[in-house]
Amino acid sequence: MSPAIRSEEARQAIVEAAFDLCAEQGFAAVTIEGIAARAGVGKTTIYRWWPSKAAILIEAVENARDAAAGYPDTGDIYADLAAQTSSVMRLFKTDFGTIWRGLIAAAQSDEAAADGVTRILRVSIDACVARLAKARDAGQIRDDLDLEMAVEIIYGPIYHTWLLRTRPVPEAYMETVLAALLPALTPSPGRH
Amino acid sequence: MSPAIRSEEARQAIVEAAFDLCAEQGFAAVTIEGIAARAGVGKTTIYRWWPSKAAILIEAVENARDAAAGYPDTGDIYADLAAQTSSVMRLFKTDFGTIWRGLIAAAQSDEAAADGVTRILRVSIDACVARLAKARDAGQIRDDLDLEMAVEIIYGPIYHTWLLRTRPVPEAYMETVLAALLPALTPSPGRH
Repeated sequence: MSPAIRSEEARQAIVEAAFDLCAEQGFAAVTIEGIAARAGVGKTTIYRWWPSKAAILIEAVENARDAAAGYPDTGDIYADLAAQTSSVMRLFKTDFGTIWRGLIAAAQSDEAAADGVTRILRVSIDACVARLAKARDAGQIRDDLDLEMAVEIIYGPIYHTWLLRTRPVPEAYMETVLAALLPALTPSPGRH
Repeated sequence: MSPAIRSEEARQAIVEAAFDLCAEQGFAAVTIEGIAARAGVGKTTIYRWWPSKAAILIEAVENARDAAAGYPDTGDIYADLAAQTSSVMRLFKTDFGTIWRGLIAAAQSDEAAADGVTRILRVSIDACVARLAKARDAGQIRDDLDLEMAVEIIYGPIYHTWLLRTRPVPEAYMETVLAALLPALTPSPGRH
Protein backbone atom coordinates (compact mmCIF):
# COMPACT_ATOMS: atom_id res chain seq x y z
CA MET A 1 0.00 0.00 0.00
CA SER A 2 1.35 3.43 -0.90
CA PRO A 3 2.04 6.01 1.83
CA ALA A 4 -0.66 8.24 0.28
CA ILE A 5 -3.30 5.53 0.74
CA ARG A 6 -2.14 4.75 4.29
CA SER A 7 -2.26 8.47 5.03
CA GLU A 8 -5.80 8.80 3.66
CA GLU A 9 -6.85 5.75 5.67
CA ALA A 10 -5.42 7.27 8.85
CA ARG A 11 -7.25 10.56 8.18
CA GLN A 12 -10.50 8.68 7.64
CA ALA A 13 -9.97 6.59 10.79
CA ILE A 14 -9.39 9.76 12.82
CA VAL A 15 -12.51 11.49 11.49
CA GLU A 16 -14.59 8.37 12.17
CA ALA A 17 -13.13 7.95 15.67
CA ALA A 18 -13.88 11.60 16.47
CA PHE A 19 -17.46 11.23 15.17
CA ASP A 20 -18.11 8.01 17.11
CA LEU A 21 -16.59 9.25 20.38
CA CYS A 22 -18.53 12.51 20.19
CA ALA A 23 -21.75 10.59 19.51
CA GLU A 24 -21.02 8.32 22.50
CA GLN A 25 -19.69 10.83 25.06
CA GLY A 26 -20.81 14.26 23.85
CA PHE A 27 -18.51 16.89 22.36
CA ALA A 28 -17.35 18.37 25.68
CA ALA A 29 -15.99 15.04 26.97
CA VAL A 30 -13.98 14.10 23.86
CA THR A 31 -10.20 14.59 23.94
CA ILE A 32 -7.50 14.40 21.25
CA GLU A 33 -5.94 11.59 23.33
CA GLY A 34 -9.18 9.63 23.17
CA ILE A 35 -9.51 10.14 19.42
CA ALA A 36 -5.89 9.04 18.86
CA ALA A 37 -6.39 5.89 20.96
CA ARG A 38 -9.64 4.98 19.18
CA ALA A 39 -8.15 5.61 15.70
CA GLY A 40 -4.93 3.74 16.58
CA VAL A 41 -2.67 6.68 15.72
CA GLY A 42 -0.42 9.00 17.72
CA LYS A 43 -1.50 12.46 18.87
CA THR A 44 1.17 14.03 16.67
CA THR A 45 -0.47 12.46 13.60
CA ILE A 46 -3.71 14.20 14.49
CA TYR A 47 -2.04 17.55 15.17
CA ARG A 48 -0.26 17.31 11.81
CA TRP A 49 -3.65 17.65 10.09
CA TRP A 50 -5.99 19.43 12.54
CA PRO A 51 -5.46 22.08 15.23
CA SER A 52 -8.34 20.92 17.51
CA LYS A 53 -11.10 18.37 18.01
CA ALA A 54 -13.57 20.96 16.68
CA ALA A 55 -11.66 21.03 13.36
CA ILE A 56 -11.87 17.22 13.02
CA LEU A 57 -15.60 17.22 13.76
CA ILE A 58 -16.24 20.05 11.31
CA GLU A 59 -14.66 17.84 8.65
CA ALA A 60 -16.87 14.94 9.79
CA VAL A 61 -19.98 17.11 9.49
CA GLU A 62 -18.91 18.43 6.08
CA ASN A 63 -18.36 14.85 4.85
CA ALA A 64 -21.79 13.78 6.14
CA ARG A 65 -23.46 16.83 4.60
CA ASP A 66 -21.74 16.43 1.22
CA ALA A 67 -23.14 12.92 1.05
CA ALA A 68 -26.68 14.27 1.53
CA ALA A 69 -28.83 15.54 -1.33
CA GLY A 70 -29.33 19.24 -2.07
CA TYR A 71 -32.49 21.20 -1.28
CA PRO A 72 -35.60 19.28 -2.35
CA ASP A 73 -37.35 20.68 -5.43
CA THR A 74 -40.73 19.19 -6.32
CA GLY A 75 -42.00 22.52 -7.70
CA ASP A 76 -44.10 23.08 -4.53
CA ILE A 77 -42.08 25.31 -2.18
CA TYR A 78 -44.24 24.61 0.90
CA ALA A 79 -44.01 20.86 0.48
CA ASP A 80 -40.25 21.22 -0.01
CA LEU A 81 -39.77 23.47 3.05
CA ALA A 82 -41.87 21.08 5.15
CA ALA A 83 -39.90 18.06 3.92
CA GLN A 84 -36.49 19.67 4.41
CA THR A 85 -37.18 21.21 7.84
CA SER A 86 -38.69 17.93 9.10
CA SER A 87 -35.62 16.13 7.86
CA VAL A 88 -33.39 18.61 9.74
CA MET A 89 -35.37 18.02 12.93
CA ARG A 90 -35.04 14.25 12.52
CA LEU A 91 -31.29 14.63 11.86
CA PHE A 92 -30.93 16.66 15.07
CA LYS A 93 -32.15 13.62 17.04
CA THR A 94 -29.37 11.42 15.62
CA ASP A 95 -25.62 11.24 16.38
CA PHE A 96 -25.20 14.02 13.83
CA GLY A 97 -27.31 16.25 16.10
CA THR A 98 -25.11 15.48 19.12
CA ILE A 99 -22.03 16.51 17.15
CA TRP A 100 -23.63 19.58 15.58
CA ARG A 101 -24.85 20.69 19.03
CA GLY A 102 -21.32 20.33 20.39
CA LEU A 103 -19.80 22.32 17.52
CA ILE A 104 -22.31 25.15 17.95
CA ALA A 105 -21.49 25.19 21.68
CA ALA A 106 -17.75 25.30 20.90
CA ALA A 107 -18.37 28.08 18.37
CA GLN A 108 -19.43 30.37 21.22
CA SER A 109 -15.84 30.56 22.50
CA ASP A 110 -13.59 29.00 19.80
CA GLU A 111 -13.02 31.04 16.63
CA ALA A 112 -12.00 28.02 14.53
CA ALA A 113 -15.19 26.20 15.51
CA ALA A 114 -17.20 29.37 14.79
CA ASP A 115 -15.65 29.65 11.32
CA GLY A 116 -16.43 25.99 10.61
CA VAL A 117 -20.04 26.30 11.79
CA THR A 118 -20.49 29.44 9.68
CA ARG A 119 -18.95 27.72 6.63
CA ILE A 120 -21.17 24.64 7.00
CA LEU A 121 -24.31 26.75 7.47
CA ARG A 122 -23.46 29.05 4.56
CA VAL A 123 -23.82 26.15 2.09
CA SER A 124 -27.20 25.17 3.57
CA ILE A 125 -28.46 28.75 3.73
CA ASP A 126 -27.39 29.46 0.13
CA ALA A 127 -29.18 26.28 -1.03
CA CYS A 128 -32.38 27.37 0.74
CA VAL A 129 -32.09 30.93 -0.61
CA ALA A 130 -31.66 29.53 -4.16
CA ARG A 131 -34.75 27.33 -3.70
CA LEU A 132 -36.76 30.30 -2.35
CA ALA A 133 -35.60 32.46 -5.28
CA LYS A 134 -36.84 29.86 -7.72
CA ALA A 135 -40.18 29.75 -5.86
CA ARG A 136 -40.35 33.55 -5.95
CA ASP A 137 -39.85 33.47 -9.72
CA ALA A 138 -42.69 30.91 -9.87
CA GLY A 139 -44.95 33.31 -7.93
CA GLN A 140 -45.03 31.17 -4.76
CA ILE A 141 -43.00 33.56 -2.55
CA ARG A 142 -43.46 37.33 -2.10
CA ASP A 143 -41.08 39.28 -4.30
CA ASP A 144 -40.38 41.93 -1.63
CA LEU A 145 -38.97 39.40 0.87
CA ASP A 146 -35.29 39.38 1.90
CA LEU A 147 -34.64 35.66 1.28
CA GLU A 148 -31.72 35.36 3.70
CA MET A 149 -34.04 36.76 6.38
CA ALA A 150 -36.75 34.33 5.24
CA VAL A 151 -34.33 31.46 5.94
CA GLU A 152 -33.73 32.87 9.43
CA ILE A 153 -37.48 33.14 10.05
CA ILE A 154 -38.08 29.57 8.85
CA TYR A 155 -35.13 27.86 10.61
CA GLY A 156 -35.07 30.18 13.66
CA PRO A 157 -37.81 28.29 15.53
CA ILE A 158 -36.00 24.96 14.99
CA TYR A 159 -32.73 26.22 16.47
CA HIS A 160 -34.57 28.22 19.16
CA THR A 161 -36.34 25.14 20.53
CA TRP A 162 -33.43 22.75 19.93
CA LEU A 163 -30.55 24.80 21.40
CA LEU A 164 -32.49 26.61 24.14
CA ARG A 165 -34.47 23.47 25.08
CA THR A 166 -37.46 25.59 26.05
CA ARG A 167 -39.98 22.80 25.43
CA PRO A 168 -40.32 19.46 23.67
CA VAL A 169 -41.84 20.32 20.30
CA PRO A 170 -44.65 18.24 18.78
CA GLU A 171 -43.96 15.82 15.92
CA ALA A 172 -45.52 18.03 13.23
CA TYR A 173 -43.96 21.22 14.66
CA MET A 174 -42.57 22.62 11.42
CA GLU A 175 -45.78 21.95 9.52
CA THR A 176 -47.58 24.14 12.07
CA VAL A 177 -44.85 26.80 11.91
CA LEU A 178 -44.93 26.88 8.10
CA ALA A 179 -48.74 27.04 8.06
CA ALA A 180 -48.55 30.03 10.42
CA LEU A 181 -45.83 31.67 8.29
CA LEU A 182 -47.71 31.13 5.02
CA PRO A 183 -49.39 34.59 4.96
CA ALA A 184 -45.98 36.22 5.54
CA LEU A 185 -44.24 34.27 2.77
CA THR A 186 -46.85 34.12 -0.01
CA PRO A 187 -47.60 36.98 -2.43
CA SER A 188 -50.48 39.21 -1.23
CA PRO A 189 -53.05 38.25 -3.91
CA GLY A 190 -52.48 34.58 -3.15
CA ARG A 191 -53.22 34.82 0.59
CA HIS A 192 -56.06 32.71 1.78
CA MET B 1 -21.30 42.74 61.36
CA SER B 2 -23.42 39.61 61.75
CA PRO B 3 -22.36 36.33 60.14
CA ALA B 4 -25.55 36.47 57.99
CA ILE B 5 -24.55 39.83 56.52
CA ARG B 6 -20.93 38.70 55.95
CA SER B 7 -22.28 35.58 54.28
CA GLU B 8 -24.59 37.60 52.01
CA GLU B 9 -21.68 39.91 51.15
CA ALA B 10 -19.48 36.94 50.24
CA ARG B 11 -22.24 35.49 48.05
CA GLN B 12 -22.65 38.84 46.30
CA ALA B 13 -18.86 39.19 45.82
CA ILE B 14 -18.69 35.71 44.26
CA VAL B 15 -21.57 36.39 41.85
CA GLU B 16 -19.99 39.72 40.85
CA ALA B 17 -16.54 38.17 40.43
CA ALA B 18 -17.98 35.40 38.24
CA PHE B 19 -19.88 37.95 36.12
CA ASP B 20 -16.83 40.22 35.68
CA LEU B 21 -14.41 37.38 34.89
CA CYS B 22 -16.79 35.86 32.36
CA ALA B 23 -17.26 39.28 30.71
CA GLU B 24 -13.47 39.73 30.56
CA GLN B 25 -12.33 36.22 29.57
CA GLY B 26 -15.40 34.49 28.16
CA PHE B 27 -17.30 31.68 29.90
CA ALA B 28 -15.05 28.84 28.73
CA ALA B 29 -11.90 30.36 30.26
CA VAL B 30 -13.35 31.07 33.72
CA THR B 31 -12.45 28.69 36.56
CA ILE B 32 -13.75 28.34 40.14
CA GLU B 33 -10.17 29.08 41.28
CA GLY B 34 -10.21 32.37 39.38
CA ILE B 35 -13.60 33.35 40.78
CA ALA B 36 -12.43 32.53 44.33
CA ALA B 37 -9.28 34.60 43.91
CA ARG B 38 -11.15 37.59 42.47
CA ALA B 39 -13.84 37.44 45.18
CA GLY B 40 -11.29 36.98 47.95
CA VAL B 41 -12.83 33.76 49.24
CA GLY B 42 -11.78 30.12 49.35
CA LYS B 43 -12.94 27.54 46.78
CA THR B 44 -14.76 25.63 49.53
CA THR B 45 -16.90 28.72 50.23
CA ILE B 46 -18.01 28.72 46.60
CA TYR B 47 -18.71 24.98 46.53
CA ARG B 48 -20.78 25.34 49.71
CA TRP B 49 -23.33 27.36 47.70
CA TRP B 50 -22.93 26.39 44.04
CA PRO B 51 -21.97 23.14 42.26
CA SER B 52 -20.37 24.81 39.20
CA LYS B 53 -19.44 28.10 37.55
CA ALA B 54 -22.56 27.76 35.37
CA ALA B 55 -24.73 27.79 38.51
CA ILE B 56 -23.09 31.02 39.75
CA LEU B 57 -23.57 32.70 36.38
CA ILE B 58 -27.19 31.59 36.16
CA GLU B 59 -27.73 33.39 39.46
CA ALA B 60 -25.96 36.46 38.05
CA VAL B 61 -28.22 36.45 34.98
CA GLU B 62 -31.35 35.95 37.11
CA ASN B 63 -30.34 38.90 39.33
CA ALA B 64 -29.72 41.11 36.27
CA ARG B 65 -33.01 40.08 34.69
CA ASP B 66 -35.05 40.59 37.87
CA ALA B 67 -33.78 44.16 37.96
CA ALA B 68 -35.09 44.77 34.41
CA ALA B 69 -38.67 45.79 33.67
CA GLY B 70 -41.34 43.33 32.43
CA TYR B 71 -42.60 43.14 28.86
CA PRO B 72 -43.37 46.62 27.49
CA ASP B 73 -47.09 47.42 27.14
CA THR B 74 -48.00 50.63 25.33
CA GLY B 75 -51.18 49.09 23.90
CA ASP B 76 -49.51 48.71 20.47
CA ILE B 77 -48.20 45.13 20.21
CA TYR B 78 -45.97 45.80 17.20
CA ALA B 79 -44.31 48.80 18.80
CA ASP B 80 -43.82 46.72 21.96
CA LEU B 81 -42.38 43.71 20.11
CA ALA B 82 -40.04 45.99 18.15
CA ALA B 83 -38.91 47.77 21.32
CA GLN B 84 -38.38 44.58 23.32
CA THR B 85 -36.60 42.60 20.58
CA SER B 86 -34.32 45.57 19.80
CA SER B 87 -33.51 45.82 23.47
CA VAL B 88 -32.64 42.09 23.55
CA MET B 89 -30.32 42.54 20.57
CA ARG B 90 -28.61 45.50 22.26
CA LEU B 91 -28.27 43.48 25.48
CA PHE B 92 -26.60 40.63 23.53
CA LYS B 93 -23.80 43.04 22.56
CA THR B 94 -23.02 43.80 26.21
CA ASP B 95 -21.24 41.78 28.94
CA PHE B 96 -24.61 40.18 29.63
CA GLY B 97 -24.54 38.79 26.08
CA THR B 98 -21.08 37.26 26.63
CA ILE B 99 -22.32 35.50 29.75
CA TRP B 100 -25.62 34.40 28.24
CA ARG B 101 -23.77 33.03 25.19
CA GLY B 102 -21.47 31.04 27.50
CA LEU B 103 -24.37 29.61 29.48
CA ILE B 104 -26.21 28.54 26.32
CA ALA B 105 -22.99 26.85 25.14
CA ALA B 106 -22.61 25.10 28.52
CA ALA B 107 -26.27 24.05 28.37
CA GLN B 108 -25.45 21.85 25.34
CA SER B 109 -23.48 19.43 27.56
CA ASP B 110 -24.21 20.38 31.21
CA GLU B 111 -27.67 19.49 32.59
CA ALA B 112 -27.51 22.05 35.42
CA ALA B 113 -26.69 24.82 32.94
CA ALA B 114 -29.48 23.58 30.66
CA ASP B 115 -31.99 23.68 33.54
CA GLY B 116 -30.89 27.22 34.43
CA VAL B 117 -31.13 28.45 30.83
CA THR B 118 -34.59 26.88 30.49
CA ARG B 119 -35.71 28.43 33.80
CA ILE B 120 -34.47 31.88 32.81
CA LEU B 121 -36.07 31.70 29.37
CA ARG B 122 -39.37 30.39 30.73
CA VAL B 123 -39.97 33.67 32.61
CA SER B 124 -39.24 35.71 29.45
CA ILE B 125 -41.33 33.46 27.20
CA ASP B 126 -44.28 33.52 29.62
CA ALA B 127 -44.09 37.33 29.76
CA CYS B 128 -44.13 37.54 25.95
CA VAL B 129 -46.99 35.00 25.69
CA ALA B 130 -49.00 37.05 28.24
CA ARG B 131 -48.39 40.25 26.23
CA LEU B 132 -49.39 38.49 22.99
CA ALA B 133 -52.54 37.11 24.66
CA LYS B 134 -53.53 40.63 25.71
CA ALA B 135 -52.91 41.82 22.13
CA ARG B 136 -55.00 38.92 20.80
CA ASP B 137 -57.86 39.96 23.10
CA ALA B 138 -57.48 43.51 21.70
CA GLY B 139 -57.79 42.13 18.14
CA GLN B 140 -54.15 42.84 17.21
CA ILE B 141 -53.03 39.19 16.99
CA ARG B 142 -54.73 36.28 15.18
CA ASP B 143 -56.84 34.24 17.54
CA ASP B 144 -55.84 30.92 15.94
CA LEU B 145 -52.12 31.37 16.65
CA ASP B 146 -50.23 29.15 19.14
CA LEU B 147 -48.64 31.96 21.17
CA GLU B 148 -45.69 29.90 22.44
CA MET B 149 -44.90 29.12 18.78
CA ALA B 150 -45.34 32.82 17.94
CA VAL B 151 -42.61 33.63 20.49
CA GLU B 152 -40.34 31.06 18.80
CA ILE B 153 -41.06 32.58 15.37
CA ILE B 154 -40.34 36.12 16.64
CA TYR B 155 -37.20 35.37 18.71
CA GLY B 156 -35.92 32.51 16.51
CA PRO B 157 -34.23 34.83 13.97
CA ILE B 158 -32.42 36.70 16.79
CA TYR B 159 -30.94 33.54 18.29
CA HIS B 160 -30.31 32.04 14.83
CA THR B 161 -28.13 34.95 13.73
CA TRP B 162 -26.56 35.54 17.14
CA LEU B 163 -25.60 31.93 18.08
CA LEU B 164 -24.87 30.62 14.58
CA ARG B 165 -23.06 33.84 13.54
CA THR B 166 -24.22 33.37 9.96
CA ARG B 167 -24.01 37.08 9.14
CA PRO B 168 -23.80 40.46 10.81
CA VAL B 169 -27.41 41.68 10.97
CA PRO B 170 -28.36 45.27 10.12
CA GLU B 171 -29.22 47.76 12.86
CA ALA B 172 -32.99 47.69 12.21
CA TYR B 173 -33.03 43.89 11.73
CA MET B 174 -35.98 43.10 13.99
CA GLU B 175 -38.09 45.93 12.56
CA THR B 176 -37.66 44.28 9.14
CA VAL B 177 -38.39 40.80 10.56
CA LEU B 178 -41.52 42.03 12.35
CA ALA B 179 -42.72 43.87 9.23
CA ALA B 180 -42.30 40.64 7.26
CA LEU B 181 -44.10 38.63 9.98
CA LEU B 182 -47.00 41.09 10.24
CA PRO B 183 -49.30 39.23 7.79
CA ALA B 184 -48.70 36.00 9.74
CA LEU B 185 -49.44 37.56 13.13
CA THR B 186 -52.34 39.91 12.44
CA PRO B 187 -55.99 38.81 12.11
CA SER B 188 -57.00 38.14 8.49
CA PRO B 189 -59.41 41.08 8.07
CA GLY B 190 -56.72 43.45 9.31
CA ARG B 191 -54.09 42.38 6.77
CA HIS B 192 -52.91 45.14 4.50
